[in-house]
Amino acid sequence: MSMPDNARADVAVLGLGTMGVAIARALLADNHRAAVWNRTPTRADELAEAGAQAADSASDAVGASELVLICVTDYDAARAVLGSAEGRLAGRVVVNLTSGSSAEARSLAAWVEDRGARYLDGAILAGPADLGTADSLILFSGSQAAYDEHRPVLQAVAGRATHLGTDAGLASIHDVAVLAIMWSLLNGFLHGAALLKRAGVRAEAFLPIARSGIGTTAGWLDEYAVQVDAGRHPGEDATLATHVAAMQHLLDETHSAGVDPALPSAFKALGDRALEAGLADSGYTAIVDLLLEKQER
Amino acid sequence: MSMPDNARADVAVLGLGTMGVAIARALLADNHRAAVWNRTPTRADELAEAGAQAADSASDAVGASELVLICVTDYDAARAVLGSAEGRLAGRVVVNLTSGSSAEARSLAAWVEDRGARYLDGAILAGPADLGTADSLILFSGSQAAYDEHRPVLQAVAGRATHLGTDAGLASIHDVAVLAIMWSLLNGFLHGAALLKRAGVRAEAFLPIARSGIGTTAGWLDEYAVQVDAGRHPGEDATLATHVAAMQHLLDETHSAGVDPALPSAFKALGDRALEAGLADSGYTAIVDLLLEKQER
Repeated sequence: MSMPDNARADVAVLGLGTMGVAIARALLADNHRAAVWNRTPTRADELAEAGAQAADSASDAVGASELVLICVTDYDAARAVLGSAEGRLAGRVVVNLTSGSSAEARSLAAWVEDRGARYLDGAILAGPADLGTADSLILFSGSQAAYDEHRPVLQAVAGRATHLGTDAGLASIHDVAVLAIMWSLLNGFLHGAALLKRAGVRAEAFLPIARSGIGTTAGWLDEYAVQVDAGRHPGEDATLATHVAAMQHLLDETHSAGVDPALPSAFKALGDRALEAGLADSGYTAIVDLLLEKQER
Repeated sequence: MSMPDNARADVAVLGLGTMGVAIARALLADNHRAAVWNRTPTRADELAEAGAQAADSASDAVGASELVLICVTDYDAARAVLGSAEGRLAGRVVVNLTSGSSAEARSLAAWVEDRGARYLDGAILAGPADLGTADSLILFSGSQAAYDEHRPVLQAVAGRATHLGTDAGLASIHDVAVLAIMWSLLNGFLHGAALLKRAGVRAEAFLPIARSGIGTTAGWLDEYAVQVDAGRHPGEDATLATHVAAMQHLLDETHSAGVDPALPSAFKALGDRALEAGLADSGYTAIVDLLLEKQER
Protein backbone atom coordinates (compact mmCIF):
# COMPACT_ATOMS: atom_id res chain seq x y z
CA MET A 1 0.00 0.00 0.00
CA SER A 2 2.94 2.37 0.19
CA MET A 3 3.28 5.08 -2.42
CA PRO A 4 5.98 5.11 -5.07
CA ASP A 5 8.99 7.27 -4.26
CA ASN A 6 8.24 9.74 -7.02
CA ALA A 7 4.52 10.08 -6.30
CA ARG A 8 3.16 13.62 -6.35
CA ALA A 9 0.05 14.74 -4.53
CA ASP A 10 -1.94 17.97 -4.31
CA VAL A 11 -2.07 17.70 -0.56
CA ALA A 12 -0.71 15.61 2.32
CA VAL A 13 -2.95 14.77 5.26
CA LEU A 14 -1.18 13.86 8.50
CA GLY A 15 -3.30 12.37 11.26
CA LEU A 16 -6.32 10.27 10.42
CA GLY A 17 -8.62 10.57 13.38
CA THR A 18 -12.29 11.24 12.72
CA MET A 19 -11.55 14.74 11.40
CA GLY A 20 -8.46 13.72 9.42
CA VAL A 21 -10.37 10.97 7.63
CA ALA A 22 -13.23 13.37 6.87
CA ILE A 23 -10.75 15.92 5.49
CA ALA A 24 -9.08 13.29 3.29
CA ARG A 25 -12.40 12.02 2.00
CA ALA A 26 -13.54 15.57 1.18
CA LEU A 27 -10.34 16.09 -0.82
CA LEU A 28 -10.68 12.79 -2.68
CA ALA A 29 -14.32 13.54 -3.44
CA ASP A 30 -13.18 16.80 -5.06
CA ASN A 31 -10.67 14.87 -7.19
CA HIS A 32 -7.55 16.03 -5.38
CA ARG A 33 -4.59 13.69 -5.14
CA ALA A 34 -4.03 13.13 -1.40
CA ALA A 35 -1.07 11.52 0.34
CA VAL A 36 -2.17 10.32 3.76
CA TRP A 37 -0.37 9.15 6.87
CA ASN A 38 -1.36 8.05 10.34
CA ARG A 39 0.68 6.78 13.27
CA THR A 40 -1.29 3.52 13.14
CA PRO A 41 -1.63 2.70 9.44
CA THR A 42 -5.03 0.94 9.35
CA ARG A 43 -6.96 4.10 8.52
CA ALA A 44 -4.50 5.08 5.79
CA ASP A 45 -5.09 1.70 4.18
CA GLU A 46 -8.84 2.31 4.23
CA LEU A 47 -8.34 5.66 2.50
CA ALA A 48 -5.98 4.07 -0.04
CA GLU A 49 -8.93 1.96 -1.18
CA ALA A 50 -10.76 5.25 -1.81
CA GLY A 51 -7.87 6.52 -3.94
CA ALA A 52 -5.44 8.08 -1.47
CA GLN A 53 -1.71 7.45 -1.52
CA ALA A 54 -0.82 5.80 1.82
CA ALA A 55 2.62 7.03 2.94
CA ASP A 56 4.95 4.96 5.08
CA SER A 57 6.01 7.94 7.11
CA ALA A 58 4.96 11.50 7.80
CA SER A 59 8.16 12.57 6.09
CA ASP A 60 7.21 10.68 2.91
CA ALA A 61 3.76 12.26 2.90
CA VAL A 62 5.28 15.74 3.37
CA GLY A 63 7.74 14.99 0.57
CA ALA A 64 4.91 14.24 -1.83
CA SER A 65 3.12 17.59 -1.62
CA GLU A 66 3.67 21.32 -1.30
CA LEU A 67 0.56 21.56 0.90
CA VAL A 68 0.57 19.72 4.23
CA LEU A 69 -2.58 19.45 6.38
CA ILE A 70 -2.16 18.15 9.90
CA CYS A 71 -4.91 17.29 12.36
CA VAL A 72 -3.80 15.40 15.46
CA THR A 73 -4.63 15.26 19.19
CA ASP A 74 -2.78 18.34 20.39
CA TYR A 75 0.11 20.67 19.60
CA ASP A 76 2.70 18.39 21.23
CA ALA A 77 1.67 15.65 18.84
CA ALA A 78 1.67 18.08 15.90
CA ARG A 79 5.19 19.24 16.77
CA ALA A 80 6.39 15.62 17.05
CA VAL A 81 4.90 14.64 13.67
CA LEU A 82 6.23 17.75 11.91
CA GLY A 83 9.56 17.24 13.66
CA SER A 84 9.86 13.80 12.05
CA ALA A 85 9.63 15.54 8.65
CA GLU A 86 11.66 18.59 9.67
CA GLY A 87 14.21 18.26 6.86
CA ARG A 88 11.54 18.29 4.16
CA LEU A 89 9.43 21.25 5.31
CA ALA A 90 11.29 24.04 3.49
CA GLY A 91 9.19 25.66 0.77
CA ARG A 92 5.97 23.97 1.83
CA VAL A 93 2.77 25.27 3.41
CA VAL A 94 1.78 23.70 6.74
CA VAL A 95 -1.90 23.99 7.58
CA ASN A 96 -2.47 22.97 11.19
CA LEU A 97 -6.04 22.01 12.05
CA THR A 98 -5.21 20.68 15.51
CA SER A 99 -7.15 22.35 18.36
CA GLY A 100 -5.13 24.48 20.72
CA SER A 101 -4.52 27.95 22.08
CA SER A 102 -3.54 31.08 20.18
CA ALA A 103 -0.16 30.99 21.96
CA GLU A 104 0.46 27.43 20.73
CA ALA A 105 -0.52 28.44 17.19
CA ARG A 106 1.83 31.44 17.20
CA SER A 107 4.65 29.31 18.61
CA LEU A 108 4.18 26.57 16.01
CA ALA A 109 3.96 29.19 13.26
CA ALA A 110 7.36 30.55 14.31
CA TRP A 111 8.84 27.03 14.43
CA VAL A 112 7.50 26.19 10.95
CA GLU A 113 8.66 29.51 9.50
CA ASP A 114 12.13 28.96 10.97
CA ARG A 115 12.28 25.84 8.78
CA GLY A 116 11.51 27.80 5.63
CA ALA A 117 7.84 26.87 5.36
CA ARG A 118 4.73 29.01 5.55
CA TYR A 119 2.07 28.42 8.22
CA LEU A 120 -1.70 28.55 8.38
CA ASP A 121 -3.67 27.73 11.49
CA GLY A 122 -7.19 26.44 11.08
CA ALA A 123 -10.15 26.04 13.43
CA ILE A 124 -12.81 23.62 12.22
CA LEU A 125 -16.28 24.97 13.01
CA ALA A 126 -18.10 21.99 11.58
CA GLY A 127 -18.72 18.37 12.40
CA PRO A 128 -16.83 15.70 10.44
CA ALA A 129 -19.97 14.81 8.50
CA ASP A 130 -20.24 18.40 7.24
CA LEU A 131 -16.69 18.69 5.87
CA GLY A 132 -16.60 18.87 2.11
CA THR A 133 -19.99 20.58 1.91
CA ALA A 134 -20.57 24.10 0.67
CA ASP A 135 -21.90 25.17 4.05
CA SER A 136 -19.02 23.95 6.26
CA LEU A 137 -16.76 26.51 7.93
CA ILE A 138 -13.07 26.44 8.74
CA LEU A 139 -11.44 29.63 10.01
CA PHE A 140 -7.84 30.17 8.90
CA SER A 141 -5.19 32.61 10.04
CA GLY A 142 -1.52 33.05 9.18
CA SER A 143 0.13 33.53 5.80
CA GLN A 144 -2.22 35.38 3.46
CA ALA A 145 -0.21 34.39 0.37
CA ALA A 146 -0.30 30.71 1.32
CA TYR A 147 -4.05 30.92 1.84
CA ASP A 148 -4.62 32.64 -1.49
CA GLU A 149 -2.50 30.09 -3.36
CA HIS A 150 -4.24 27.07 -1.85
CA ARG A 151 -7.73 28.40 -1.48
CA PRO A 152 -9.32 25.90 -3.95
CA VAL A 153 -8.00 22.92 -1.96
CA LEU A 154 -9.01 24.48 1.38
CA GLN A 155 -12.48 25.23 0.02
CA ALA A 156 -12.79 21.61 -1.03
CA VAL A 157 -12.46 20.77 2.66
CA ALA A 158 -14.82 23.53 3.83
CA GLY A 159 -16.90 25.51 1.37
CA ARG A 160 -17.01 28.56 3.64
CA ALA A 161 -13.27 28.62 4.34
CA THR A 162 -12.42 32.09 5.70
CA HIS A 163 -9.07 33.81 6.24
CA LEU A 164 -9.10 36.09 9.30
CA GLY A 165 -5.70 37.73 9.19
CA THR A 166 -1.97 37.10 9.32
CA ASP A 167 -1.77 36.60 13.11
CA ALA A 168 -1.68 32.79 13.36
CA GLY A 169 -3.47 32.99 16.74
CA LEU A 170 -6.68 34.48 15.31
CA ALA A 171 -8.27 31.20 14.26
CA SER A 172 -8.14 29.68 17.73
CA ILE A 173 -9.33 32.88 19.43
CA HIS A 174 -12.30 33.04 17.07
CA ASP A 175 -12.86 29.34 17.74
CA VAL A 176 -13.22 29.75 21.50
CA ALA A 177 -15.20 32.98 21.02
CA VAL A 178 -17.73 31.05 18.95
CA LEU A 179 -17.70 28.24 21.52
CA ALA A 180 -18.49 30.84 24.20
CA ILE A 181 -21.54 31.82 22.18
CA MET A 182 -22.47 28.16 21.63
CA TRP A 183 -22.37 27.25 25.33
CA SER A 184 -24.12 30.50 26.21
CA LEU A 185 -26.98 29.74 23.90
CA LEU A 186 -27.24 26.07 24.91
CA ASN A 187 -27.15 26.95 28.62
CA GLY A 188 -29.75 29.67 28.16
CA PHE A 189 -32.06 27.32 26.28
CA LEU A 190 -31.59 24.50 28.80
CA HIS A 191 -32.18 26.83 31.75
CA GLY A 192 -35.39 28.08 30.16
CA ALA A 193 -36.43 24.52 29.37
CA ALA A 194 -35.81 23.53 33.00
CA LEU A 195 -37.98 26.40 34.30
CA LEU A 196 -40.75 25.49 31.89
CA LYS A 197 -40.54 21.78 32.62
CA ARG A 198 -41.45 22.63 36.24
CA ALA A 199 -44.61 24.29 34.87
CA GLY A 200 -45.42 21.23 32.73
CA VAL A 201 -44.33 22.79 29.43
CA ARG A 202 -42.35 20.64 26.99
CA ALA A 203 -39.11 21.91 25.49
CA GLU A 204 -40.60 21.39 22.03
CA ALA A 205 -43.41 23.81 22.94
CA PHE A 206 -40.88 26.34 24.26
CA LEU A 207 -38.77 26.11 21.11
CA PRO A 208 -40.67 28.55 18.83
CA ILE A 209 -40.63 31.21 21.56
CA ALA A 210 -36.97 30.49 22.32
CA ARG A 211 -36.16 30.87 18.63
CA SER A 212 -38.05 34.14 18.52
CA GLY A 213 -35.97 35.38 21.46
CA ILE A 214 -32.76 34.27 19.79
CA GLY A 215 -33.74 36.04 16.57
CA THR A 216 -34.73 39.26 18.36
CA THR A 217 -31.51 39.33 20.39
CA ALA A 218 -29.34 38.47 17.39
CA GLY A 219 -30.99 41.36 15.57
CA TRP A 220 -29.54 43.79 18.13
CA LEU A 221 -25.95 42.67 17.56
CA ASP A 222 -25.24 44.95 14.59
CA GLU A 223 -25.87 47.99 16.73
CA TYR A 224 -24.19 46.42 19.77
CA ALA A 225 -21.04 45.64 17.78
CA VAL A 226 -20.86 49.31 16.81
CA GLN A 227 -21.21 50.27 20.48
CA VAL A 228 -18.45 47.85 21.52
CA ASP A 229 -16.10 49.18 18.85
CA ALA A 230 -16.90 52.79 19.69
CA GLY A 231 -16.66 52.23 23.45
CA ARG A 232 -19.97 54.03 23.83
CA HIS A 233 -22.85 52.24 25.51
CA PRO A 234 -26.04 54.30 25.44
CA GLY A 235 -28.88 52.85 27.49
CA GLU A 236 -31.58 54.01 25.14
CA ASP A 237 -33.29 50.63 24.74
CA ALA A 238 -32.70 49.53 28.35
CA THR A 239 -30.20 50.49 31.03
CA LEU A 240 -28.10 48.04 32.99
CA ALA A 241 -30.12 49.03 36.06
CA THR A 242 -33.26 47.78 34.27
CA HIS A 243 -31.48 44.61 33.15
CA VAL A 244 -30.21 43.82 36.64
CA ALA A 245 -33.67 44.31 38.14
CA ALA A 246 -35.05 41.86 35.59
CA MET A 247 -32.21 39.43 36.37
CA GLN A 248 -33.52 39.36 39.93
CA HIS A 249 -36.91 38.30 38.53
CA LEU A 250 -35.21 35.45 36.67
CA LEU A 251 -33.34 34.45 39.81
CA ASP A 252 -36.49 34.55 41.95
CA GLU A 253 -38.44 32.49 39.42
CA THR A 254 -35.54 30.03 39.26
CA HIS A 255 -35.46 29.60 43.05
CA SER A 256 -39.20 29.25 43.37
CA ALA A 257 -39.23 26.62 40.60
CA GLY A 258 -36.50 24.66 42.36
CA VAL A 259 -34.16 24.95 39.39
CA ASP A 260 -30.40 25.21 39.84
CA PRO A 261 -29.49 28.93 39.89
CA ALA A 262 -25.93 28.60 38.50
CA LEU A 263 -26.65 30.44 35.28
CA PRO A 264 -28.83 33.36 36.51
CA SER A 265 -26.57 33.76 39.56
CA ALA A 266 -23.58 34.25 37.27
CA PHE A 267 -25.52 36.79 35.18
CA LYS A 268 -26.71 38.66 38.26
CA ALA A 269 -23.23 38.72 39.79
CA LEU A 270 -21.85 40.23 36.58
CA GLY A 271 -24.73 42.71 36.44
CA ASP A 272 -24.23 43.69 40.10
CA ARG A 273 -20.54 44.32 39.41
CA ALA A 274 -21.55 46.55 36.50
CA LEU A 275 -23.79 48.58 38.80
CA GLU A 276 -21.00 48.82 41.40
CA ALA A 277 -18.72 50.06 38.63
CA GLY A 278 -21.11 52.95 38.02
CA LEU A 279 -22.63 51.57 34.82
CA ALA A 280 -26.28 51.63 35.96
CA ASP A 281 -27.34 54.13 33.30
CA SER A 282 -25.30 52.52 30.51
CA GLY A 283 -26.62 50.04 28.01
CA TYR A 284 -25.89 46.32 28.20
CA THR A 285 -22.79 46.45 26.00
CA ALA A 286 -20.95 48.28 28.81
CA ILE A 287 -20.44 44.75 30.21
CA VAL A 288 -17.59 44.43 27.70
CA ASP A 289 -15.70 47.18 29.53
CA LEU A 290 -16.15 45.23 32.75
CA LEU A 291 -14.77 42.09 31.07
CA LEU A 292 -11.77 44.05 29.79
CA GLU A 293 -10.96 46.28 32.75
CA LYS A 294 -9.76 43.76 35.31
CA GLN A 295 -6.43 43.06 33.74
CA GLU A 296 -5.98 45.88 31.27
CA ARG A 297 -2.73 45.43 29.44
CA MET B 1 -61.25 65.99 29.33
CA SER B 2 -63.30 63.52 31.38
CA MET B 3 -65.49 61.04 29.59
CA PRO B 4 -69.30 61.15 29.71
CA ASP B 5 -70.92 58.80 32.22
CA ASN B 6 -72.43 56.61 29.55
CA ALA B 7 -69.31 56.39 27.36
CA ARG B 8 -68.57 52.93 25.99
CA ALA B 9 -65.14 51.75 24.91
CA ASP B 10 -63.71 48.60 23.36
CA VAL B 11 -60.96 48.56 25.91
CA ALA B 12 -59.76 50.31 29.05
CA VAL B 13 -56.07 50.99 29.57
CA LEU B 14 -54.96 51.53 33.16
CA GLY B 15 -51.44 52.84 33.70
CA LEU B 16 -49.86 55.14 31.15
CA GLY B 17 -46.15 54.65 31.54
CA THR B 18 -44.09 54.19 28.40
CA MET B 19 -45.67 50.81 27.70
CA GLY B 20 -49.20 51.87 28.62
CA VAL B 21 -49.05 54.85 26.27
CA ALA B 22 -47.68 52.64 23.48
CA ILE B 23 -50.49 50.14 24.07
CA ALA B 24 -53.14 52.87 23.96
CA ARG B 25 -51.68 54.38 20.82
CA ALA B 26 -51.61 50.98 19.11
CA LEU B 27 -55.28 50.50 19.95
CA LEU B 28 -56.25 53.97 18.73
CA ALA B 29 -54.27 53.42 15.53
CA ASP B 30 -56.35 50.29 14.92
CA ASN B 31 -59.55 52.31 15.42
CA HIS B 32 -60.48 50.87 18.78
CA ARG B 33 -62.27 53.06 21.28
CA ALA B 34 -60.00 53.26 24.31
CA ALA B 35 -60.79 54.59 27.78
CA VAL B 36 -57.52 55.52 29.49
CA TRP B 37 -56.52 56.32 33.04
CA ASN B 38 -53.31 57.14 34.84
CA ARG B 39 -52.60 58.05 38.46
CA THR B 40 -51.20 61.37 37.26
CA PRO B 41 -53.58 62.54 34.52
CA THR B 42 -51.20 64.44 32.20
CA ARG B 43 -50.54 61.47 29.96
CA ALA B 44 -54.23 60.64 29.73
CA ASP B 45 -54.85 64.17 28.50
CA GLU B 46 -52.23 63.70 25.79
CA LEU B 47 -53.92 60.51 24.64
CA ALA B 48 -57.33 62.21 24.71
CA GLU B 49 -56.00 64.53 22.01
CA ALA B 50 -55.30 61.40 19.97
CA GLY B 51 -58.88 60.19 20.42
CA ALA B 52 -58.87 58.35 23.73
CA GLN B 53 -61.48 58.82 26.42
CA ALA B 54 -59.67 60.10 29.51
CA ALA B 55 -61.33 58.65 32.62
CA ASP B 56 -61.37 60.45 35.98
CA SER B 57 -60.75 57.23 37.87
CA ALA B 58 -59.66 53.66 37.26
CA SER B 59 -63.14 52.65 38.26
CA ASP B 60 -64.70 54.86 35.58
CA ALA B 61 -62.36 53.40 32.95
CA VAL B 62 -63.22 49.86 34.04
CA GLY B 63 -66.91 50.74 33.94
CA ALA B 64 -66.59 51.82 30.30
CA SER B 65 -65.32 48.54 28.88
CA GLU B 66 -65.63 44.79 29.15
CA LEU B 67 -61.89 44.47 28.44
CA VAL B 68 -59.44 46.01 30.92
CA LEU B 69 -55.72 46.21 30.20
CA ILE B 70 -53.43 47.18 33.06
CA CYS B 71 -49.72 47.92 32.88
CA VAL B 72 -48.21 49.47 36.00
CA THR B 73 -44.97 49.29 38.01
CA ASP B 74 -45.53 46.06 39.89
CA TYR B 75 -48.19 43.71 41.19
CA ASP B 76 -48.77 45.71 44.37
CA ALA B 77 -49.65 48.70 42.22
CA ALA B 78 -51.83 46.53 39.95
CA ARG B 79 -53.71 45.17 42.96
CA ALA B 80 -54.23 48.70 44.33
CA VAL B 81 -55.56 50.05 41.03
CA LEU B 82 -57.86 47.05 40.46
CA GLY B 83 -58.92 47.26 44.10
CA SER B 84 -60.15 50.83 43.51
CA ALA B 85 -62.47 49.39 40.82
CA GLU B 86 -63.29 46.20 42.72
CA GLY B 87 -67.05 46.66 42.61
CA ARG B 88 -67.11 46.99 38.82
CA LEU B 89 -64.94 44.02 37.85
CA ALA B 90 -67.65 41.34 37.65
CA GLY B 91 -68.19 40.05 34.11
CA ARG B 92 -65.10 41.77 32.72
CA VAL B 93 -61.77 40.47 31.42
CA VAL B 94 -58.67 41.78 33.17
CA VAL B 95 -55.48 41.57 31.09
CA ASN B 96 -52.48 42.28 33.29
CA LEU B 97 -49.33 43.29 31.43
CA THR B 98 -47.39 44.27 34.56
CA SER B 99 -44.06 42.43 34.98
CA GLY B 100 -43.86 40.02 37.88
CA SER B 101 -43.45 36.42 38.93
CA SER B 102 -45.60 33.45 38.05
CA ALA B 103 -46.69 33.25 41.70
CA GLU B 104 -47.88 36.88 41.60
CA ALA B 105 -49.73 36.22 38.34
CA ARG B 106 -51.49 33.15 39.77
CA SER B 107 -52.39 35.03 42.94
CA LEU B 108 -53.82 38.00 41.06
CA ALA B 109 -55.72 35.63 38.74
CA ALA B 110 -57.40 34.07 41.78
CA TRP B 111 -58.23 37.50 43.22
CA VAL B 112 -59.74 38.70 39.94
CA GLU B 113 -61.71 35.48 39.45
CA ASP B 114 -63.08 35.74 43.00
CA ARG B 115 -64.62 39.04 41.87
CA GLY B 116 -66.42 37.40 38.95
CA ALA B 117 -64.01 38.50 36.24
CA ARG B 118 -61.75 36.49 33.95
CA TYR B 119 -57.97 36.94 33.95
CA LEU B 120 -55.22 36.95 31.38
CA ASP B 121 -51.60 37.55 32.21
CA GLY B 122 -49.38 39.03 29.52
CA ALA B 123 -45.62 39.33 29.07
CA ILE B 124 -44.53 41.95 26.56
CA LEU B 125 -41.59 40.67 24.51
CA ALA B 126 -41.23 43.85 22.50
CA GLY B 127 -40.07 47.40 22.94
CA PRO B 128 -42.70 50.16 23.19
CA ALA B 129 -41.86 51.34 19.66
CA ASP B 130 -42.71 47.87 18.28
CA LEU B 131 -46.17 47.58 19.83
CA GLY B 132 -48.95 47.73 17.25
CA THR B 133 -46.77 46.18 14.55
CA ALA B 134 -47.36 42.79 12.96
CA ASP B 135 -44.06 41.49 14.27
CA SER B 136 -44.45 42.38 17.96
CA LEU B 137 -44.95 39.61 20.50
CA ILE B 138 -46.93 39.45 23.71
CA LEU B 139 -47.28 36.10 25.45
CA PHE B 140 -50.60 35.52 27.20
CA SER B 141 -51.73 32.90 29.68
CA GLY B 142 -54.93 32.39 31.65
CA SER B 143 -58.53 32.16 30.44
CA GLN B 144 -58.62 30.61 26.96
CA ALA B 145 -62.18 31.80 26.35
CA ALA B 146 -61.32 35.38 27.29
CA TYR B 147 -58.34 35.27 24.95
CA ASP B 148 -60.37 33.88 22.07
CA GLU B 149 -63.11 36.50 22.53
CA HIS B 150 -60.70 39.45 22.62
CA ARG B 151 -58.02 38.21 20.26
CA PRO B 152 -58.60 40.98 17.65
CA VAL B 153 -57.99 43.71 20.21
CA LEU B 154 -54.96 41.91 21.67
CA GLN B 155 -53.52 41.42 18.20
CA ALA B 156 -53.94 45.14 17.56
CA VAL B 157 -51.49 45.63 20.43
CA ALA B 158 -49.10 42.86 19.31
CA GLY B 159 -49.47 41.17 15.94
CA ARG B 160 -47.89 37.95 17.16
CA ALA B 161 -50.00 37.68 20.32
CA THR B 162 -49.77 34.09 21.54
CA HIS B 163 -51.79 32.18 24.16
CA LEU B 164 -49.66 29.65 26.05
CA GLY B 165 -52.17 27.88 28.26
CA THR B 166 -54.66 28.37 31.06
CA ASP B 167 -52.08 28.52 33.89
CA ALA B 168 -51.84 32.29 34.47
CA GLY B 169 -48.18 31.84 35.51
CA LEU B 170 -47.02 30.62 32.10
CA ALA B 171 -46.53 34.05 30.52
CA SER B 172 -44.08 35.26 33.17
CA ILE B 173 -42.15 31.95 33.22
CA HIS B 174 -41.74 32.12 29.44
CA ASP B 175 -40.75 35.77 29.83
CA VAL B 176 -37.82 35.03 32.16
CA ALA B 177 -36.89 31.94 30.12
CA VAL B 178 -36.54 34.15 27.04
CA LEU B 179 -34.61 36.71 29.09
CA ALA B 180 -32.25 33.91 30.16
CA ILE B 181 -31.58 33.23 26.48
CA MET B 182 -31.19 36.94 25.77
CA TRP B 183 -28.59 37.53 28.49
CA SER B 184 -26.86 34.28 27.57
CA LEU B 185 -26.46 35.35 23.98
CA LEU B 186 -25.44 38.92 24.82
CA ASN B 187 -22.88 37.72 27.39
CA GLY B 188 -21.48 35.15 24.97
CA PHE B 189 -21.13 37.74 22.23
CA LEU B 190 -19.56 40.30 24.56
CA HIS B 191 -17.13 37.75 25.99
CA GLY B 192 -16.08 36.76 22.48
CA ALA B 193 -15.78 40.41 21.49
CA ALA B 194 -13.57 41.06 24.54
CA LEU B 195 -11.25 38.16 23.64
CA LEU B 196 -10.99 39.39 20.07
CA LYS B 197 -10.48 43.01 21.06
CA ARG B 198 -7.29 41.86 22.84
CA ALA B 199 -6.13 40.47 19.48
CA GLY B 200 -6.98 43.71 17.70
CA VAL B 201 -10.15 42.43 16.04
CA ARG B 202 -13.19 44.70 15.94
CA ALA B 203 -16.58 43.46 17.11
CA GLU B 204 -17.98 44.32 13.69
CA ALA B 205 -15.45 41.94 12.10
CA PHE B 206 -16.39 39.22 14.60
CA LEU B 207 -20.10 39.66 13.93
CA PRO B 208 -20.49 37.48 10.78
CA ILE B 209 -18.69 34.60 12.47
CA ALA B 210 -20.66 35.11 15.68
CA ARG B 211 -23.89 35.03 13.66
CA SER B 212 -22.77 31.85 11.94
CA GLY B 213 -22.14 30.28 15.36
CA ILE B 214 -25.55 31.41 16.59
CA GLY B 215 -27.22 29.96 13.51
CA THR B 216 -25.38 26.65 13.75
CA THR B 217 -26.18 26.28 17.45
CA ALA B 218 -29.81 27.32 17.00
CA GLY B 219 -30.06 24.65 14.31
CA TRP B 220 -29.33 21.96 16.90
CA LEU B 221 -32.19 23.00 19.17
CA ASP B 222 -34.90 20.98 17.42
CA GLU B 223 -33.05 17.77 18.19
CA TYR B 224 -31.98 19.00 21.63
CA ALA B 225 -35.59 19.84 22.56
CA VAL B 226 -36.54 16.25 21.69
CA GLN B 227 -33.72 14.99 23.91
CA VAL B 228 -34.81 17.21 26.81
CA ASP B 229 -38.40 16.04 26.52
CA ALA B 230 -37.39 12.39 26.22
CA GLY B 231 -34.86 12.62 29.07
CA ARG B 232 -32.33 10.90 26.79
CA HIS B 233 -29.04 12.65 26.05
CA PRO B 234 -26.95 10.71 23.54
CA GLY B 235 -23.44 12.11 23.07
CA GLU B 236 -23.28 11.25 19.40
CA ASP B 237 -22.24 14.71 18.21
CA ALA B 238 -20.05 15.48 21.23
CA THR B 239 -19.91 14.18 24.78
CA LEU B 240 -19.89 16.37 27.87
CA ALA B 241 -16.31 15.18 28.46
CA THR B 242 -15.36 16.70 25.10
CA HIS B 243 -17.28 19.88 25.86
CA VAL B 244 -15.65 20.33 29.27
CA ALA B 245 -12.16 19.82 27.79
CA ALA B 246 -12.94 22.56 25.25
CA MET B 247 -14.28 24.79 28.05
CA GLN B 248 -10.83 24.58 29.58
CA HIS B 249 -9.41 25.91 26.29
CA LEU B 250 -11.83 28.85 26.47
CA LEU B 251 -10.86 29.49 30.08
CA ASP B 252 -7.12 29.31 29.30
CA GLU B 253 -7.51 31.66 26.34
CA THR B 254 -9.55 34.02 28.51
CA HIS B 255 -6.89 34.10 31.24
CA SER B 256 -4.02 34.57 28.83
CA ALA B 257 -5.88 37.42 27.11
CA GLY B 258 -6.46 39.13 30.45
CA VAL B 259 -10.23 39.00 30.04
CA ASP B 260 -12.54 38.57 33.02
CA PRO B 261 -13.29 34.84 33.37
CA ALA B 262 -16.75 35.15 34.97
CA LEU B 263 -18.62 33.63 32.07
CA PRO B 264 -16.33 30.71 31.10
CA SER B 265 -15.74 29.96 34.79
CA ALA B 266 -19.47 29.55 35.28
CA PHE B 267 -19.71 27.28 32.23
CA LYS B 268 -16.75 25.19 33.34
CA ALA B 269 -18.09 24.87 36.90
CA LEU B 270 -21.40 23.60 35.52
CA GLY B 271 -19.56 21.24 33.15
CA ASP B 272 -17.35 19.92 35.95
CA ARG B 273 -20.45 19.23 38.06
CA ALA B 274 -21.90 17.30 35.12
CA LEU B 275 -18.78 15.15 34.94
CA GLU B 276 -18.87 14.59 38.71
CA ALA B 277 -22.50 13.51 38.32
CA GLY B 278 -21.36 10.79 35.92
CA LEU B 279 -22.54 12.50 32.73
CA ALA B 280 -19.16 12.46 30.91
CA ASP B 281 -20.43 10.23 28.09
CA SER B 282 -23.78 12.00 27.75
CA GLY B 283 -24.56 14.76 25.29
CA TYR B 284 -24.78 18.42 26.27
CA THR B 285 -28.53 18.37 26.95
CA ALA B 286 -27.87 16.23 30.05
CA ILE B 287 -27.11 19.62 31.70
CA VAL B 288 -30.88 20.05 32.02
CA ASP B 289 -31.00 17.07 34.40
CA LEU B 290 -28.31 18.74 36.49
CA LEU B 291 -30.36 21.96 36.59
CA LEU B 292 -33.44 20.02 37.67
CA GLU B 293 -32.00 17.50 40.10
CA LYS B 294 -30.88 19.73 42.98
CA GLN B 295 -34.27 20.49 44.36
CA GLU B 296 -36.49 17.87 42.75
CA ARG B 297 -40.04 18.36 43.88
